[in-house]
Amino acid sequence: MKRMLVVGIGAGDPDHLTLQAVKAIGLVDVFFVLDKGEAKDDLVRLRRGMVEAHGRPGHRVVEARDPERDRTAAGYAGAVEEWRSRRAVVYERLIAEELGEGETGGFLVWGDPGVYDSTLAILEEVLGRGAVAFEYEVVPGISSVAALTARHRTSLTRVGRPVQVTTGRRLEAEGPGDVDDIVVMLDARCAFAGMQGFDIYWGAYVGTPDEILVAGPVEEVAERIKEVRAAARERKGWIMDTYLLRRRDPLS
Amino acid sequence: MKRMLVVGIGAGDPDHLTLQAVKAIGLVDVFFVLDKGEAKDDLVRLRRGMVEAHGRPGHRVVEARDPERDRTAAGYAGAVEEWRSRRAVVYERLIAEELGEGETGGFLVWGDPGVYDSTLAILEEVLGRGAVAFEYEVVPGISSVAALTARHRTSLTRVGRPVQVTTGRRLEAEGPGDVDDIVVMLDARCAFAGMQGFDIYWGAYVGTPDEILVAGPVEEVAERIKEVRAAARERKGWIMDTYLLRRRDPLS
Ligand SMILES: C[S@@+](CC[C@H](N)C(=O)[O-])C[C@H]1O[C@@H](n2cnc3c(N)ncnc32)[C@H](O)[C@@H]1O
Ligand SMILES: C[S@@+](CC[C@H](N)C(=O)[O-])C[C@H]1O[C@@H](n2cnc3c(N)ncnc32)[C@H](O)[C@@H]1O
Repeated sequence: MKRMLVVGIGAGDPDHLTLQAVKAIGLVDVFFVLDKGEAKDDLVRLRRGMVEAHGRPGHRVVEARDPERDRTAAGYAGAVEEWRSRRAVVYERLIAEELGEGETGGFLVWGDPGVYDSTLAILEEVLGRGAVAFEYEVVPGISSVAALTARHRTSLTRVGRPVQVTTGRRLEAEGPGDVDDIVVMLDARCAFAGMQGFDIYWGAYVGTPDEILVAGPVEEVAERIKEVRAAARERKGWIMDTYLLRRRDPLS
Repeated sequence: MKRMLVVGIGAGDPDHLTLQAVKAIGLVDVFFVLDKGEAKDDLVRLRRGMVEAHGRPGHRVVEARDPERDRTAAGYAGAVEEWRSRRAVVYERLIAEELGEGETGGFLVWGDPGVYDSTLAILEEVLGRGAVAFEYEVVPGISSVAALTARHRTSLTRVGRPVQVTTGRRLEAEGPGDVDDIVVMLDARCAFAGMQGFDIYWGAYVGTPDEILVAGPVEEVAERIKEVRAAARERKGWIMDTYLLRRRDPLS
């Protein structure tokens, strides 16, 4: 039987790795590195450093190009699902051709594999296609949500209250509704800007040497965040940011 | 200056510790262990094992009794806040009397310190009282949410969709509303039982040798979970369980 390990590596700090992840990396014969053809050099370097530090002697690294996502498609979820299917074809080929029977393959997944990441869905799709068989296990990781709240030294949840995790796209389209505490990821459009009555805890490149943190009432800090964000994005060529919005006078 | 480290230790597996947490534990001069007088021997043993494995030579361990929470009080949030203030008095005394200037104190917090845990709020309250000064830092940890989804090999989030994290109390009182994906913690009453139309991914003692996992449509597995849960609680004297509810036909 072939075995795959899907390992959460944390959100940017090499020390976010858990001992379980270190041990898992040490079991991997073949690391699969899917490159989206983006310029995120730091992220490639971080993964490479982890493999060099914790990989077992003789491990192999197989690099492949992730298919492009159709960013012009109208429906976001549909486009992501179609993209996922094309990725499943690539992953299937890699597992079939590059991993021997009895060997262990590894995917190093940013943050936690359960949070807005498609690796698990892709592996399920590969299994569903039936052309290649394998077992797999998932190693949890520090998500950017946990990294963000730790750096702001704030709690994700208020006593006995719910918190919602959502995307910038959703927040922009639907507004906050009656939700008092919201974590927003995948926001390319600064959907926080209109969120009157909320405090924001914002962070970019959290856990990395480029980390930027800003917190305060949205009314007071939104412009500053927009400026800082645009400048950082310009400088590095890409940005990863997440934020927690907390209604000052909870509705519920 | 005194320094405090609030270290997330993960949800039950000693290998949930991050490298950052291991290093933080190695910096601590004085560990503060607040005991709620409960019979959770395994949890005490887990923390003790971490301190022994990663603590620096010569560290001290100060144990104290956490004040009791008034479980008969009508308002949950109010009772928790009142309890927090009484705990702040205890923490203030510990930091004032047991930690020297220039020393580092440590709290080992279950899971992630940002998820339904009051340590950060207590430290802010201690600082607000003004009687003792210190710096503090927070080390994120693997929450039971990340541990649960990893063990079920399922994603927390569906593509582009929100997820809500809430308590059993809230779910029981308010129902799911129009939320499609819900993580429930702190549920002593099996609030999942009435959740028709949802799949459930349930786990108890996740990450520990006692781990129990059950998944399936609520209509089919709710009774089994109730039985397994009652039997486990009876056997061990306590239980920690969390679950993800996922609406089979999403509303949004
Ligand atoms: C495709 S999702 C992957 C999330 C990842 N699985 C996790 O657990 O954090 C990418 C989004 O995660 C967030 N993100 C990831 N790493 C981050 C970091 N170091 N700082 C801030 N946000 C980050 C951003 O919102 C980004 O748009
Ligand atoms: C006071 S909260 C603390 C949560 C913790 N800070 C975290 O990040 O998981 C306690 C609740 O966490 C959940 N929990 C903690 N550890 C767990 C485990 N090993 N398995 C299942 N649920 C767990 C249960 O819902 C429990 O009622």
